[in-house]
Amino acid sequence: MPERLSVIFVGLGPIGQEAATLALKRSYLEVRGGVDIDPQKAGQDLGDLLGVGRRLGLNVTADLKRALAETSPDVVVVSTGSYFPQVYGQLMTVIEAGANVVSTCEELVYPWAGYPDQARQLDMLAQKHGVTVVGTGVNPGFVMDTMALFFSGICQQVRRVSAWRIVDAATRRRPLQEKIGAGLTPEQFRAAVEAGRVRHVGLRESAYLVAAGLGWRLTDYQETVEPVIASEPVSTEYVSVPTGHVAGVRQVGKGFRDGEPVVELTLEMYVGARNPRDVVTIDGVPPVEVEVPGGIHGDRATAAIVVNAIPRVADAPPGLLTMKDLPLVHLRA
Amino acid sequence: MPERLSVIFVGLGPIGQEAATLALKRSYLEVRGGVDIDPQKAGQDLGDLLGVGRRLGLNVTADLKRALAETSPDVVVVSTGSYFPQVYGQLMTVIEAGANVVSTCEELVYPWAGYPDQARQLDMLAQKHGVTVVGTGVNPGFVMDTMALFFSGICQQVRRVSAWRIVDAATRRRPLQEKIGAGLTPEQFRAAVEAGRVRHVGLRESAYLVAAGLGWRLTDYQETVEPVIASEPVSTEYVSVPTGHVAGVRQVGKGFRDGEPVVELTLEMYVGARNPRDVVTIDGVPPVEVEVPGGIHGDRATAAIVVNAIPRVADAPPGLLTMKDLPLVHLRA
Repeated sequence: MPERLSVIFVGLGPIGQEAATLALKRSYLEVRGGVDIDPQKAGQDLGDLLGVGRRLGLNVTADLKRALAETSPDVVVVSTGSYFPQVYGQLMTVIEAGANVVSTCEELVYPWAGYPDQARQLDMLAQKHGVTVVGTGVNPGFVMDTMALFFSGICQQVRRVSAWRIVDAATRRRPLQEKIGAGLTPEQFRAAVEAGRVRHVGLRESAYLVAAGLGWRLTDYQETVEPVIASEPVSTEYVSVPTGHVAGVRQVGKGFRDGEPVVELTLEMYVGARNPRDVVTIDGVPPVEVEVPGGIHGDRATAAIVVNAIPRVADAPPGLLTMKDLPLVHLRA
Repeated sequence: MPERLSVIFVGLGPIGQEAATLALKRSYLEVRGGVDIDPQKAGQDLGDLLGVGRRLGLNVTADLKRALAETSPDVVVVSTGSYFPQVYGQLMTVIEAGANVVSTCEELVYPWAGYPDQARQLDMLAQKHGVTVVGTGVNPGFVMDTMALFFSGICQQVRRVSAWRIVDAATRRRPLQEKIGAGLTPEQFRAAVEAGRVRHVGLRESAYLVAAGLGWRLTDYQETVEPVIASEPVSTEYVSVPTGHVAGVRQVGKGFRDGEPVVELTLEMYVGARNPRDVVTIDGVPPVEVEVPGGIHGDRATAAIVVNAIPRVADAPPGLLTMKDLPLVHLRA
C-alpha cells in the first residue's frame, strides 16, 4: 500500500457526499475529485458541494473518463445506482483505467446471484487489469450477510441462518420513507410493488453471499414484499399515515437447499416501528444469537464502511471480490 | 490453496481434542496426526484418544520434530499453553519445518503487547520460511477484540471501545471453576491472585489488538483482578460456595491514550452469574452496541474458530499475523 491512497467519488448523492466528507478526514486518504452527472453539481468545487466550509481546489465533473485520466486514483468509490446493470459500464471504465473500486451498488455485494455471466466478465477484466472490485454497505454488505458470516466463524456447524433488520423509518430520510410506501393505501402499495417502486434491493444478494460463504449452493430463492399496516395513526416530518394505511414494508427473502429454507432474511422498514434492531441467529453448534439494539444507522454506517474498506480493497488480490474475501474491515484512525 | 489442507494437532487437551475431532469432519482438511507429551496419550491411535469410535491409523507421538518430518503438514494447530514463552520454542520448530500455525495460545493473539522483541523475531522467521502464524480463540481472539474491530468497520469515528464478557462458570468445565477461585475465601483468593493462579490470560492482548486495529498507540495499560463474592450460597457439580466466599473473578483491563481510558474490557467469570452475555459498545459515530445474550460458549467456539481459521491462515501472506489481518474467518461446510 502506498503511503496515501488517492480516491475519487463517483455519484455524489447523500451517501457519496457523506463518504467523501469522511474520506477528507482520513490522513491516509487523498481525495482527488468527484464525478456526478447532475448539472447542478458538475462544475462546482467539491468542498462547496460537500459543504465542508472551504474550497478544496477539486473539481466535480460529469465526465468519468476525464476524471480518471486527470486524477489517476488508486480507488474509485462508485455510488451511482442500486442495480448491477446500472453501474456495469461505469465499473468497466474504472477498471480499464486501472483503478480499484468500492461501490455501494447493492447488487454488486454478490452479483453472481443475479448476473453470473456479467459477474464473471467483470471478474476477468479486474484480474486482467490487476484491480479489485468490491460492493459493500450496511444492508446489503453488513448486517444481514457479513455479520452472519462473521459469527459463523465461532460455529462448528451451521444448520440455518436467520437475520432480522427492523428499522423505524420515521428517523430516516424522506426518500427512504417514500421508498417504503409510507402513507399509501394497501391498494396503492400493491401497485407500487408491482411497478418495482417499493422494494429493498439486495436481500437476494445477502442470502447468496451468506450461502456462498458457508459453502452452500442454494437451489431456490423466494422473496415476498408485504405492507406493514398502521394500527394507529403515525406522523413523521414528511408523511402522515392514518390507521389502516401503509406504514412501510416487510420483505422476506428465503434461500433454500433441497427444499429446506437455510437462509431467512426479514427486513421490516416502517414508520413507528417499535424496538428497532438488527438480529442474527445461527441455528448451529454452538447456537448464536446476536442483537444490535436500536439497529445500525444505515446512512452513517454505509458511508463509514465504504471509507473503511478502501485500504482493504487497495491491498486485496485482483478480481471481483466480496466482503467475505477481504481482511477484516475496521476503522483505522 | 491445495485441494485439501493437511493438519496436525499439537497439544491434545480438551480444546486440542475438540478441534481435532471437528477437523476430521471437514472435507477440505486432512488430519495427519497428533502430538502430546503426556505419556498416557503418546502412543495411542488418534481415533482412540479422541473417542471418535474408530481407529484412524494416525499416531499420537510425544516428538514434535518427528511428527513434522513424518507428516509434512500444511498447518499445525498448537494448543499447548497460554503464555507466549511456553509456545515460542514449539512455534520456532514448526516454522522451521515450513508449516503454518494456528494456535490457541492466548498471548499469541497479540504478542507485541508483552514480548515485542520475540514477536519481531517470530515474524521474521515466519516470513523467511514463507509461513503464517496466527493466535486465535474466543477470548482472547474474538469476543473482546476481533468483534469490537468488526463493528468499528461501520463507524466513521471511534472514541472509546468497551467490552463485557459475563460467564456463568457453573456451566463450564471443572478446571475453569478452579481457575477462577470459586469456593475460596477472599483471603485465599488474594493469595491465589498473587501467586498468579487466578487470572485470565489475554485481556491485555485483546486491548492491544483493538488499539492496533484502530491505529491507536496505547500509552498505558492497567489491569485489576478482584473477587466476585457470593451473596447467597451457590453449588455446582464441582464446587460449593457459601455466602461470603468467592464465586469467581472480575478482571478489568484498561488501555489508555494520553491518560484517557480508550479500551475498557471487563471479564466476569463466576458461578451463578445472572444474565451471562457478551457485549461490545463503541462510543463513536454512529454509536454501536452489540449483545450476545447468553454469551458465546468458550470451548465449543474456540475449537470452531481454530478449525475455521485454518484455510485463511494457509492462504494468508507470510509472517506473524493477527485476527485483524485475516480475511473473514467464517464456517465453510
